[in-house]
Amino acid sequence: MKDQEKQKNLDLKTTAILITDPQNDFLSEGGAVWDLVGSEVQKYNVVEKLKQLRQTAKKVGIPVFYSPHTYTENEYKTWKHLNFIDKVMFERKMFNKGTWGEDWHSELKPDENTIVLSPHKGLSNFHTGDINTQLRQRDIKTLIIAGMSANLCVESHVRDAAEHAFNVITVKDATAGAGADATKAAHTNFGFLSDEVVTTAEIVERLQESSTIVLTHDTRMN
Amino acid sequence: MKDQEKQKNLDLKTTAILITDPQNDFLSEGGAVWDLVGSEVQKYNVVEKLKQLRQTAKKVGIPVFYSPHTYTENEYKTWKHLNFIDKVMFERKMFNKGTWGEDWHSELKPDENTIVLSPHKGLSNFHTGDINTQLRQRDIKTLIIAGMSANLCVESHVRDAAEHAFNVITVKDATAGAGADATKAAHTNFGFLSDEVVTTAEIVERLQESSTIVLTHDTRMN
Amino acid sequence: MKDQEKQKNLDLKTTAILITDPQNDFLSEGGAVWDLVGSEVQKYNVVEKLKQLRQTAKKVGIPVFYSPHTYTENEYKTWKHLNFIDKVMFERKMFNKGTWGEDWHSELKPDENTIVLSPHKGLSNFHTGDINTQLRQRDIKTLIIAGMSANLCVESHVRDAAEHAFNVITVKDATAGAGADATKAAHTNFGFLSDEVVTTAEIVERLQESSTIVLTHDTRMN
Amino acid sequence: MKDQEKQKNLDLKTTAILITDPQNDFLSEGGAVWDLVGSEVQKYNVVEKLKQLRQTAKKVGIPVFYSPHTYTENEYKTWKHLNFIDKVMFERKMFNKGTWGEDWHSELKPDENTIVLSPHKGLSNFHTGDINTQLRQRDIKTLIIAGMSANLCVESHVRDAAEHAFNVITVKDATAGAGADATKAAHTNFGFLSDEVVTTAEIVERLQESSTIVLTHDTRMN
Repeated sequence: MKDQEKQKNLDLKTTAILITDPQNDFLSEGGAVWDLVGSEVQKYNVVEKLKQLRQTAKKVGIPVFYSPHTYTENEYKTWKHLNFIDKVMFERKMFNKGTWGEDWHSELKPDENTIVLSPHKGLSNFHTGDINTQLRQRDIKTLIIAGMSANLCVESHVRDAAEHAFNVITVKDATAGAGADATKAAHTNFGFLSDEVVTTAEIVERLQESSTIVLTHDTRMN
Repeated sequence: MKDQEKQKNLDLKTTAILITDPQNDFLSEGGAVWDLVGSEVQKYNVVEKLKQLRQTAKKVGIPVFYSPHTYTENEYKTWKHLNFIDKVMFERKMFNKGTWGEDWHSELKPDENTIVLSPHKGLSNFHTGDINTQLRQRDIKTLIIAGMSANLCVESHVRDAAEHAFNVITVKDATAGAGADATKAAHTNFGFLSDEVVTTAEIVERLQESSTIVLTHDTRMN
Repeated sequence: MKDQEKQKNLDLKTTAILITDPQNDFLSEGGAVWDLVGSEVQKYNVVEKLKQLRQTAKKVGIPVFYSPHTYTENEYKTWKHLNFIDKVMFERKMFNKGTWGEDWHSELKPDENTIVLSPHKGLSNFHTGDINTQLRQRDIKTLIIAGMSANLCVESHVRDAAEHAFNVITVKDATAGAGADATKAAHTNFGFLSDEVVTTAEIVERLQESSTIVLTHDTRMN
Repeated sequence: MKDQEKQKNLDLKTTAILITDPQNDFLSEGGAVWDLVGSEVQKYNVVEKLKQLRQTAKKVGIPVFYSPHTYTENEYKTWKHLNFIDKVMFERKMFNKGTWGEDWHSELKPDENTIVLSPHKGLSNFHTGDINTQLRQRDIKTLIIAGMSANLCVESHVRDAAEHAFNVITVKDATAGAGADATKAAHTNFGFLSDEVVTTAEIVERLQESSTIVLTHDTRMN
């Protein structure tokens, strides 16, 4: 039983939360694709779950990394190799740098515990941002991943984190896709691609327990 | 109508077929995960479709790139950060270098039109192999992607090819997943991640037409 | 002779200029490492050369990509794996986001012909920025590389551009190192790593000639 | 003094040696570029130094990773974007897969303590091989780098290891360049790019001391 306990506790010194695209175009009514993702965002109550993850991170002393998504007017005009989802984003001028849509959701603005990565330009920060260096320079080994959208940016970050040998814990109810099929595809794939798939409630409890145990150890050591 | 035609034709000088994991452990009875993927492989008749793609490629003069999957005994013993699917592969010693399971399916052995990439060690050759350099050194811009398995290695190659600004055409019936849910997740995601999703019959016809048109042009120019 | 001419002309539709770190900390008196690089910057008259490259780019209609270098207070405090040059930069708070040192040199501010890449965090944008995607999405194949500093960020961009199968033309007198040895090391290595090493005067002339020839062709075609 | 000691000792559980291109074309008389590198290889006695590093690694229980360089006949014929050094290698058919030149130097063949990475196709395994995943999957944080050639493959591995936040110790006398200028350029750049630059004798002694101290600690703990 002790071994099982040990396995369940997280080493908080090497653990971080990663949130993708916590921006109005995904999470706020009136956002560029709210008509596509809004019902799923509301069904899963994604904003509330992300707030809980942020609060817990601060409480137990682990950093939250934000991986935002941004495009410029020049990119909308000059990029030549767009897949289906790129075309949707470009037609709607989603994540347009400096606009309300690209800005953080009002309840998820970065605070002193947030490290904002360079924006990703495709679906994953590992190809177009600084995520690998930012994590490795701080000895992060375990990523708890949530955000938007489930089968696109979240899943691409999950896949690439695994390619880079990070331990990946995916929070399946703190994300949503563009429709039930998209969310379901993500849930199916998270099961294959993650070390563990958890709910927000489960990981919040586990982080708090892991924190207590560290404190207990520290006490014993003095 | 002329524009539409032009759009549908492929520039064969910059187009290639990419096949992931055409190996016994996925495609042959007795392979390491045949119990998981066999029924879907048979349902979609994947081996036959891959043979058609290879024959067409040779006929119209475009290369076929193979992205194989390989592990060593040392890796089974020493790797420390395994996600769910890694654990399945490692427990079954899937893709064990030098064994029958890791070898090519008997009807899909590389020929003079095949370029074999360095093996990938996670799901995508873009992270652990030479695919980007091999494609860019030959001015390839458009990839027609098929192989195994649908929502894992095929989908990771599709995602990363898009990150690298390749044009991606995914052949949805020349791949299969570990069960119907896995295949369905891939089909859902291919729709978002590809420039186009096609059937084998469609892309075979289109490649042949593109080839004819090139010949016609060449004739006119003389 | 015709072949030679053809070889010397550049295809302007697929060519861009790439300038690394055109920021005060490198190029202005009072910058964070002006005591180390200033004499070489003045000897080579780097600012003037970069201005000429920018003007020529605009004249012949090719884009200029800027690859800036930026750090944050959080990074100065929390990064754990610093090599020698990182330590120098971190001790001096070089490229401190939002400060004068990190800002563009006053004569090299981005204009309507400049595309500013995400900042690089190590020496090369290919590892921590969006350069590969930004170039490939615009079908750029040939990079004319200049900027600061010669054997560090310029050389790392040259190396990684070659790894990605770009054609690399390095402008050896539009860059400088921290001391004569550093500059000399860069000059030695540019010779191995580039397709061609040129002077600013040479490449300015060649771009102008390539531009004329395109115009001539266009005229003939009408 | 205790702190200094602590700093000098290496954590052997997270340390590995990385050797680039220990192949006949670089290290044996008759190799493809022996006329260019032979005098420097002999001057620095590179083969002997690499043997010492391998023996020490085995003695103290840390792995040796080999990053080989390989090309195929198809690549010699079809690659379109060659820089200066590529052209030299391709004209001489250097590292031709399956030939003597591509094979390991006779005194440096892989043994049970060697992990052979996928071959690199440019100068660095981080772009075309599996090095990042192989190292991170084994929790390696510190790399002791040596091999051939000094300012090309060794230096590119040093640069990319730093980009990935590995601690980099470069062994300056267990490498050599194509002529004295090339070696000198590498020595200059190693100073900027490494955490530390050492001699073979220094690192051999330090590894042995680090090993002793681990044993002492272990003894104390029992």
